Formats: sequence, C-alpha cells, structure tokens
Amino acid sequence: MKLRIVVPLGHSRFNQIALEECQRIASSGTEISLVNLEEGPDSIESEYEEALAVPGFLKRAREAEAQGCDAVISDCFGDPGVRPAREALAIPVIGPAETSMLLASALAQRFSVITVLPSVVPMIEELAHHAGVLGKLASSRAVNIPVLCLEDKDNLKAALYEEGLLAIRNDGAHAVILGCTGMMGVARELQEKFAACGLAIPVIDPIAAAIRMAETLVSLGLTQSRLTYRTPKGIGSAVTQAARA
Amino acid sequence: MKLRIVVPLGHSRFNQIALEECQRIASSGTEISLVNLEEGPDSIESEYEEALAVPGFLKRAREAEAQGCDAVISDCFGDPGVRPAREALAIPVIGPAETSMLLASALAQRFSVITVLPSVVPMIEELAHHAGVLGKLASSRAVNIPVLCLEDKDNLKAALYEEGLLAIRNDGAHAVILGCTGMMGVARELQEKFAACGLAIPVIDPIAAAIRMAETLVSLGLTQSRLTYRTPKGIGSAVTQAARA
Amino acid sequence: MKLRIVVPLGHSRFNQIALEECQRIASSGTEISLVNLEEGPDSIESEYEEALAVPGFLKRAREAEAQGCDAVISDCFGDPGVRPAREALAIPVIGPAETSMLLASALAQRFSVITVLPSVVPMIEELAHHAGVLGKLASSRAVNIPVLCLEDKDNLKAALYEEGLLAIRNDGAHAVILGCTGMMGVARELQEKFAACGLAIPVIDPIAAAIRMAETLVSLGLTQSRLTYRTPKGIGSAVTQAARA
Amino acid sequence: MKLRIVVPLGHSRFNQIALEECQRIASSGTEISLVNLEEGPDSIESEYEEALAVPGFLKRAREAEAQGCDAVISDCFGDPGVRPAREALAIPVIGPAETSMLLASALAQRFSVITVLPSVVPMIEELAHHAGVLGKLASSRAVNIPVLCLEDKDNLKAALYEEGLLAIRNDGAHAVILGCTGMMGVARELQEKFAACGLAIPVIDPIAAAIRMAETLVSLGLTQSRLTYRTPKGIGSAVTQAARA
Amino acid sequence: MKLRIVVPLGHSRFNQIALEECQRIASSGTEISLVNLEEGPDSIESEYEEALAVPGFLKRAREAEAQGCDAVISDCFGDPGVRPAREALAIPVIGPAETSMLLASALAQRFSVITVLPSVVPMIEELAHHAGVLGKLASSRAVNIPVLCLEDKDNLKAALYEEGLLAIRNDGAHAVILGCTGMMGVARELQEKFAACGLAIPVIDPIAAAIRMAETLVSLGLTQSRLTYRTPKGIGSAVTQAARA
Amino acid sequence: MKLRIVVPLGHSRFNQIALEECQRIASSGTEISLVNLEEGPDSIESEYEEALAVPGFLKRAREAEAQGCDAVISDCFGDPGVRPAREALAIPVIGPAETSMLLASALAQRFSVITVLPSVVPMIEELAHHAGVLGKLASSRAVNIPVLCLEDKDNLKAALYEEGLLAIRNDGAHAVILGCTGMMGVARELQEKFAACGLAIPVIDPIAAAIRMAETLVSLGLTQSRLTYRTPKGIGSAVTQAARA
Repeated sequence: MKLRIVVPLGHSRFNQIALEECQRIASSGTEISLVNLEEGPDSIESEYEEALAVPGFLKRAREAEAQGCDAVISDCFGDPGVRPAREALAIPVIGPAETSMLLASALAQRFSVITVLPSVVPMIEELAHHAGVLGKLASSRAVNIPVLCLEDKDNLKAALYEEGLLAIRNDGAHAVILGCTGMMGVARELQEKFAACGLAIPVIDPIAAAIRMAETLVSLGLTQSRLTYRTPKGIGSAVTQAARA
Repeated sequence: MKLRIVVPLGHSRFNQIALEECQRIASSGTEISLVNLEEGPDSIESEYEEALAVPGFLKRAREAEAQGCDAVISDCFGDPGVRPAREALAIPVIGPAETSMLLASALAQRFSVITVLPSVVPMIEELAHHAGVLGKLASSRAVNIPVLCLEDKDNLKAALYEEGLLAIRNDGAHAVILGCTGMMGVARELQEKFAACGLAIPVIDPIAAAIRMAETLVSLGLTQSRLTYRTPKGIGSAVTQAARA
Repeated sequence: MKLRIVVPLGHSRFNQIALEECQRIASSGTEISLVNLEEGPDSIESEYEEALAVPGFLKRAREAEAQGCDAVISDCFGDPGVRPAREALAIPVIGPAETSMLLASALAQRFSVITVLPSVVPMIEELAHHAGVLGKLASSRAVNIPVLCLEDKDNLKAALYEEGLLAIRNDGAHAVILGCTGMMGVARELQEKFAACGLAIPVIDPIAAAIRMAETLVSLGLTQSRLTYRTPKGIGSAVTQAARA
Repeated sequence: MKLRIVVPLGHSRFNQIALEECQRIASSGTEISLVNLEEGPDSIESEYEEALAVPGFLKRAREAEAQGCDAVISDCFGDPGVRPAREALAIPVIGPAETSMLLASALAQRFSVITVLPSVVPMIEELAHHAGVLGKLASSRAVNIPVLCLEDKDNLKAALYEEGLLAIRNDGAHAVILGCTGMMGVARELQEKFAACGLAIPVIDPIAAAIRMAETLVSLGLTQSRLTYRTPKGIGSAVTQAARA
Repeated sequence: MKLRIVVPLGHSRFNQIALEECQRIASSGTEISLVNLEEGPDSIESEYEEALAVPGFLKRAREAEAQGCDAVISDCFGDPGVRPAREALAIPVIGPAETSMLLASALAQRFSVITVLPSVVPMIEELAHHAGVLGKLASSRAVNIPVLCLEDKDNLKAALYEEGLLAIRNDGAHAVILGCTGMMGVARELQEKFAACGLAIPVIDPIAAAIRMAETLVSLGLTQSRLTYRTPKGIGSAVTQAARA
Repeated sequence: MKLRIVVPLGHSRFNQIALEECQRIASSGTEISLVNLEEGPDSIESEYEEALAVPGFLKRAREAEAQGCDAVISDCFGDPGVRPAREALAIPVIGPAETSMLLASALAQRFSVITVLPSVVPMIEELAHHAGVLGKLASSRAVNIPVLCLEDKDNLKAALYEEGLLAIRNDGAHAVILGCTGMMGVARELQEKFAACGLAIPVIDPIAAAIRMAETLVSLGLTQSRLTYRTPKGIGSAVTQAARA
C-alpha cells in the first residue's frame, strides 16, 4: 500500500522529520512518501493561509493518484484541500482533524482540541461540524505557540499539559486531541503524564490517526462517497481512469 | 458608499449584465464597481472549482480595500473566499448565501434553496451551518441546469417554479432562495407566480440581499468581528492601515 | 418609504428621543413616524407585561397598514406582537431582537445579548430560537438597570462595558447586542471602547438594525411568508386589500 | 384540591361540556371549576387570536389564585397565557400542549400532533421547543376542521384516524397527541381503533394530561421555578401573599 | 390500582424504608408493593453494575404483570431495565430519571441533576437524551457519597445544598433533580432551604415523580408505544394475554 | 496483537463462519480468537434479548483481558455490553455499530443503516447518539429477515439492494452500513452493484470496521477514557493489574 503525505506548505523544512515520524507510525506493509508544495504559505494559522495552500495541494493530490498512490493525507490539522480533493480523486483523501475527532468520539464522552493559536479556534469548530461531532467538542484551546516555534519540545509539552488540565477540569474534556500536525511525537508522553496524576485519558496524535485511517480505508476497499463528493466537470475522465485501475 | 462586486471567475462574460443588475438594486447613494479574476474557473459548481477561485478572489478583495471601497461582495452563492477575506480585510466582506439565508430566517419558519446542480447541495448545507441556521433549511434542490446555461431565462423560470413547488409541498419550505447568483432578475416574477396560486411566500435573490446587507453594515459602522476573523500574520499592517483610513 | 415605529408602552415619555434617534439612522428617502399605545405597561421587563402590551400593539400595527405605511417596527427588544401582527398584516413587521441576532450571526461565530434585568433572560433564549440562531447565542447577561432608569447614560455605558467584557472573556462572545431598544445612542461608543483595548468586535444597536432591515425588505419587495403567518379569520379582507394597494 | 380551568374564549358555549369532561377525568379528591373570559376571541386558531385572549386569561388566572385555587389550567392547546401567568402566580399554571408533549416523550420515540388547521402548525413547533422536546416531534398535521365545527364527532374521528395513519406511516410517529382541547372524549376510541389494526400506540388527550399534571404538581408541592419565571414588578406582593397562604 | 416497585439490588436492606416512603407519596386508591432481586449488585453506580441488575429486573417485571399489577417502577435513577421491560410488558414501565427530567422540563428553563458519584454522570446524559430533553440539562453534579452511605441524612442534605448552589450559580440551573432514588425524603426540605435564600426553585424527588406518573398513565389508559417497544420474539403471547386482560 | 471476538449468543452455530471471515479481514500480524457465551439468547433483535446477553458478555470480556488479549470486540450491531465492559477493562472494547457509524461519517454527508427487523430501529438511533453522529443518520431501514434466516445470501443481497436504493433515493443516504454483524461477506458485492448503476457509495461491513478500529487503537496505544468509563467498585484491582501489564 502506497500512502502519499502532502505537506501543504511552500518549503521542505519539516519534510525529513515528518517523513520519519510517519514511517514510524505506519504498518509494516505501508510505503510512505511525502512532498511539499511548489509554492505555498510558510505555515497555516488562518483561513487566509489555508486558502492560499489549497490549489497547490490539489495539484499534489492529483499527482499522487496519477502516480499510483492508494491514498492521500493532507498534513495539516485544518484538513486543507481535503474536501475539494475528494471530489477530484477516486482514491481516499484523509484529513487528520476529521479522523482524530472521530477516533476521540469512540473513546470518550467529550474531547478538547489543543491547537497553536487562537486564530485557529473557529476553524476547529467548523471541522467538528464537518465531521458530524460538534456536540462532542468540549472546547478548543491554544498553547499560543506559532507553528514555526514548535521545535522547542519541552516548551510545547509543558504548555500542552497545562492547557490539557484546564480542558479536563474546566471544560469537561475526557480526551485530548493535539490540534496541529506539527506537534509530532509528544502524544504518548503527554498521555502518560496525565495518567500519572489519575487522569487516564486518551491523547490523540492527528497524523497517526490519519495514517491508520488511510490504511483501514484502503484495506477495506472504501473511499469517499461520490454522492457527497461529485466529480467536478473537466476532470471526470481522470477520476474514471483512476477508478478503473 | 463604494461597493466592489468580485465575480470569482476567470472571464468577463457576465460582467456587464451583473453590473447593470447590481446597479438597479443598489440605493441611490451607492456606487457599484465590478471585477472578475485575472485567472480562475469558468463557473463554480464544486468545492474543487471554488478552491481554485479563492486565491484570485483574495487578491481582488485586498485591491478593493486598498482602492478605498467600503465593502466587498463575493458574487457566487458558494460565498467563495468570504471567510478568509474577512480575516485579511478591515472592511465588511459579504456572502450572498449567508445573507439570503439570514434574511429568509426572518421571514419564514423554514426555507429551501434551489440551486443549479446536485454537486452544489452539500456545500449549501455547510453554508447554512456557517450562517447558524441549518435548522431552518427545509431542503436544497437543483434545477439541473449548469451555470453556463442559465441564460435561457424561460427554461430557468419553469424549472425554478417546478422545484419550488416541490420544496413547498414535499419539504415544507415557507420561503425560497435562488441558489446561484447567476439566476438574476427572476425572483420577483417567481414570487408573483407562487402568490397567484395561493402560495404567498418570499423568493429571495441572493445578490440583491448581499448588496442591501453591505449598505446596512457600512451605514451602521459594523464589520466582521476580529475575534472570529483574526488578522493573518504578514498582512496585519495593511489591515491596520485600512482601519485607520 | 414610510416606516411606522410602534412603542408598545402606555405613555409617550420616550417618543421624542426615540423618534430623533430613528430619523438619524434611517436612509434619506425614509419617512419615520412613531406612536405609543393608547393603553399599556410603563415598561416591558417580563412576559406578563409583554402580554398586556400586545393587543394595543396589534391595533397600532393595523392602523399603520391602513394609513399606508410600508413596514412596522415593534420598538422593544422582546419583539412584542411581531409574530401575531405578521399574521394580520400584508406589509413587513420587524422585530429588533430577531433582526439584530441575524445581523450578529453574519459577523461573528457567537454573540451575547446584554439586557436590562435577569427577568428578561429566558425571553431572549426564546427569541434566539425563533430567529433560528440559538446555537450562536453565547450568553445573555443583564446590567441590572430597569428600563425606566436607562437615562443615566454614563452609568449604562459603564455597566455595558463591564458585562460586555465578561461576555467576551468568560462566555466566548465575538459580538455584543444591546438587549433593550432603550439603550439608544451608545453602541458606537461601546464598540470603540472595546476596540481600543484590542477587542475589535461589532456592537449592535437593535433599533438601528430593525430600521435597516425594514428598508431592505421594502426595497426588495419582500414580506413575511403567508405559509408561516396565515391570515387570521375575520381580517382576511383587510390583508387582501392592503396587498392589492 | 381545587383546580381552575380557564377557557380563553369570550363565550360560554363550551363550558358545560368541558366541565363535565374535566370532572370525569379528575381524581376523586379534586374539585374542578371552570370559567371563560369576560371578553375574548370566539376560538383560537392563530397567534393573533391567542394574543387577544391572553390579557383576559391573566386576569382570570390571578382571580383563581386569589380565590384559593391550587392550580390553573389554560384550556387551549396553544397554552395561551401559561408563561406570563407563571410569572404572576405562585401556584402552578399548566398548559395542555406542554404537558401532553412531555407525556408522549415518556411513551414513544417520536410523536405527532394532529390539530385543527394549518395555521396552528408553526405554533406547535414553538410549543415543542418551549417544552424542550422539539427533537421528538415527528410532524404536525391538521384535520382541516375549524374549532367551532368540532362538534360533529363522527367527522372528527374519521379525520383524526386518517391523519393519524399518515403520521405513523409517513412521518414515523409512534404516538399521537390530539392538538386541540376541543377534541374531547375521542382519544380512547381512536387508540383502540389504531390498536385494532396492529398499531398499538398511545393517543393522548391534552386536557386529561393537564389535569393529571396539575394534581401531580400540587400533591408533590412543586410549582414553576421563580428563576425562570421572575415576578413582574408591581404584583410581587400578591405573589408573596399567595405563597404565604 | 396496584403498583409494583422493583428495587434492582440483590438485598432487601432498603425495602422497608422505601416501601414506607412510596406509600406516603401514593394516592389513597393506590396499592404499593415492593420487591428486590433474587440476585444482583449491592448498589448501582456504574453501567457495569446496572448491566448485572437488568436480567433480574426483567424477571421481576414480568412477574409483576403476571400477578396483575397495573404498572412497574424501576427503583433506581439509572432507570435500569426500563426500556427492555417496556418491550416485554403490556403494562406501563416507569423510570424515575426519565419522569423527573420531563417534570423538570415543565417547570424550568434548565435543570441540574445531583447524583451520588462522578461515575454516574455519563449515564445521566444518556438518560436525558433518551427522555428527549438533553438540551434542558444544565449540568450533572455529584455529592461524592456512595449509595450505601446515603443514610447519614445530615451529611447528604448539606452536600446537596452545596452542589445545588453551584448548579444554580455556575451552571444556570433553574430546577434541581435528586439523582438517586436512595435520596428519599429530603427534597421538600432542600426546596425550602433554597427558597429561604431567595432561590424559589423546584427540587424533584425522582421516585415521587415516578409514582405519580404511574398513576397518571394507568388512570388515563396509556402505556408505552408498541411501535417504539416491539414485543421480543418468544414472549409475544404473554404480552397479548396481558393486553387482553 | 491478539483480538478476542465475543459472539453474545448462547450457541456456537455462527462461530466457524464468523472466525474465518474475521481472520480474512484482519492484518497479517493480528491473531483472532472467537468465543460465544455460556448462556444467552439465540439472536438479538430487541433490547430485551440484548439485556439478557450482557452479563455473559461481560464475563467473556473480563476473561479475554485476563488471558492477555489486546482488545475485545462485541460481535453484534447493537454493541451489547460495550459500554459497561469499557468500565471494567483496561484494554479497548470495540462496538461494530459505533465504529462503522464513525467511519461512515468520514466518507459521506449522511448514511443509512440497513438492519434485520423494525424492532432494532430505535436501538440504532440510540447508538448513533452514543457515537455522537445522530445528525448524520439519514434513516434506519430493515430488510425484514430475522438474524437466524440470514444464511440465504441471495435473498439477503436482493433485499439489501432494494432497501439501499430507497435509502439513497428517498432518505438522502450517501453511504450504507450493514446493520447486523450476521450480514457478513456481502458489503463489497453490494458496493459494486450500486456503483454499476452510477451510485458510487461506500457500503460498510460493521465487523470489518471494528477489527480495523481495534488494530488502530492497539497500535497507537489508545484505549477508552477512564473519565468517561470509571472503574466499577470491586474490580478496580483487576483493571489496575491489566493496565500495569
């Protein structure tokens, strides 16, 4: 199975670390490849930046299908381009936000998302509505660290722990989702830290959830409904061709 | 008051007729200008085409603010680019779908949207959720006429009447919204036709609703909330500058 | 265009100041007239007082239509009499609460209403449900100043600012609606005060919103749906007559 | 226990038959009295007529409390005056619509209301929202018989059966509420008729439900919450006095 | 009328006190009998314990019907076995949680449940959803006293008062439901204590509400809908037989 | 990874076929074992039968954990015992209904469930509410074939196709879930049949979805939240022990 991760940014700074993390998560039979955009924003912390990233993402998504990939993942918690790409592609297109929210819904009465900046909070509510589980979203909180400063892992972990405690105690969260795919490799440790103080809750890494969802869909022969995601005019033939393959 | 209408398409075919219609609707003191995109889709009937239109729309929206316009309207029922543009601009950015759904909510228990093609239906539900009035959406129906074929007005009017009757009788609609800004100049006649057979319901033209909403916001000194629509990094100064002007 | 404002109270104490404020807000071509009830409560701060005001309001509303007015506004945030008057009249009947809530929904993710007394709070939730936007109501708060004491503007402004800050910080409001039509002439100043401390949110004056909505409906040839608001028996002819005019 | 039924109409035509029916339903220890209004509509089939009935109802409700009644019932499915009377009275005020909808919610997944005329349908949705069970309302249907023509019981029963079958088969109703307090004495027979054809569903008579609810509240020492229904200014002393008694 | 109370526990420790309390509440014509299970948990404070109690409850419920009882009540706030028993029985089966939530919905804008332990809180949300009034549930709070320690009434009353105040002040509750049928005989006193400090709200005893609901259903000839609660295979004849009686 | 499938029935008739199907679905590194109950119903088509199955399921679930399994699946679409078992176990407990509804939510705007008999329909709505996606449930339909007659695959496939078409055309379903784990091995063929007539929608096999979800949770180190599913008294030590292992 070949999964293509598309980082919807105009630079390759995160490619190596993201690729290694994704390979670590994937099942043994899964082959991961990862690309960034030719042109795009440095990071996505607003609907404005997201909008600028989407056309480049769609190009990469169509390339992935043409190159024989089995599924495409948008490597950003805003799920940029996922819905339009589902229209244009026959293979599954997966969003980390949608997937991790659905996973959290299976594990807990209510969940909170802890994201980077307050500017992202309204987008998260829209994503929860898209996924159909807005009623399970206890709160969205921000650590107030821009995406480009997430590399200081100790600072990030401390801030996630602090906001996570507030989400649990004040907002009634029973699970926590890390609200940025740049928050890689910290979920397990955070989960253990909560458990150590009597709060045995799941902490969900969105890109890990997305990779597993991609594997599940491909192995079960499932893809997005064509009644929800109708093929746009002009690229119907490509879709049909891919479907035939 | 200066309103800028941005047609989010890559051609100027509809410019003249749309401009005339908008000028007919606007109040006497309102100056309307209208532009299309440098580059963009021929029409928008999918999220895919919408995504391709948004970057060009954002450029036009920022130009409008820089040129001293008081408000910007996205001339497509999908409200393409409205939310990201609200982040980037200080002046109001108005979407015809959102506005007409809110207007319908003031006039009727439930409303239906009659749009061009079934591919647009899921987008309409998302727009109703965005506007906060999903509970008032009785149904979304399609006349099955592509945007580029809307010029045959007789065909359009007959199809709108037929689907409107189904919306009223089967779906419980008490108001009808025309779900494409290309359906110009037919709302009043359709409203009269329904009234003539005992169904005195409002029929709402989305671009007319949007122009009146723009005038209302400008005259009352209101614009989008900066807490919902935070300024994206890098363009803050432009926003501040515009706000100061 | 002739708009009739009906103050649903049994005295004329607020007439002059309300008329001047409404004339200040209206467009140049709009002619405003204002009346109070022959008999009615001193102020409306409960459903009980509202109920006593409605029959008198309905009489005034029917008079307005008979005298050739184009629309009627109920000048109280409880929207007293608006729904029954819509049944009896062919011209639009507008409620300040409904209108300002719909306007707020277009500008912000969530809004709060700041009203006079806690006794009004359950009525506001019902009004938000009527308008279809209960899901956007972050909170209802009260300044604890009776309607008849709103004349001390400094006291009012200070209390609105304080409750507004709580609405923003504790309840997640991204916009504020002034929840009493007696809170005239303070919205703009309050909006500037919030903006000055970094909270650039819309502050909505309900009577201003209602006047603009009335102008919009009249100019677009729209009125309440007869399928939602059926003509009561006995006054059908009046309605038909007005509709014909 | 003394229950006062207030018929919110300006004539006494239904008094005798309603009193007998209510006495038949009440428990042995319950003393029923019944009054109509001094002045009011002939029947209530619109929000307009309802509004005209409410001031007279409030007068009768306050009289009932002053005369030592233990609870007041508004004898109309629109629950006219119930909410404002709850503010003004210390004793319980009961609405047949609210009560029968809550009873239906205990017995079935979803219920339908079958009322007199289509003009009443939007009011029923508001009542279901007030009661908190709008999500359980499968549909509202009308037999198209005005209140003043309900005396032809055979015609009424046939129409209720026909609409009831449609509610069950098309709308998914698992229980039926008779949506007019004038539909007295037919619930049991209708329930048996449905059961005879394999549809063993509850059919709820709203005035019967209201009388039993009144008895329940009085016997358990419960009344409306003063935090939801605050005492209006000026009649506080009466309320306190009644509460003291 | 013969009501059977089934205590879904494997011991008879609470039988005498519960029987006396239920007899005190019931109407004069009602004959109360009470049984516990042959085998079952000591108390129910989790879905696990509830699941273990249900088969024994179903046996007792069927016995009650066979012995000619007119209705069965499950004497635990989790309403254990109520829904499956409704399938198997023709006589009404009543749950204290469902009933008290519906009663609270008639009296207040929003209510809170104060239960024994935090482990019960997610079950309460599910019960509110079942009843159809989840939107009226302001909060669920726990006094942190296990069921088997409820006998210290002074401790219980103090804790209920404290959590009740928090429910009113922080969560917006306008009514309080005691969330355990073991909290007998304290509702009235708690209601008076709140009223004494200006918070005149209803405090609902769930078993009292259930007994009155049982009497109401039996006297009105109502029972659960067979379309919601279909007869399980194998026991159809028993149900039919009971229905015939 | 060791997964234990528990068939919640009192006979082993389906064991061999179910085991083979589950082994076919599972990943290469997954070891599947399957048991039925010592005592239980023949099939589950009501809440009554479900209630009788749960105590036996809980015993089997605890055995599985004690025997070192990594996750437990309840092999019935009613998800019997899943919630109480989550309280008692530290390893993940998975329900096919919950999992397939969440998967469908990722793939389509709305989904329908096609189950065996109408008696199961109300249970499916409750399951969708539990999962948090009731708003995405377009409808629940039944093929009217009892569980014990599902072996005639041709009859089953024809009935599923017919009801599936109705779900798509009348109810607006964009995906279909097979609502019984006994409907094994037909999803792929049904999906192809729909696609062949232009309805390219996902058809989800619930047991396949559950197995993949179990693998995902185990591989990501996730399990149910202890804040939603608190450990019942008396079995805490077992849970702690398992957690330590």
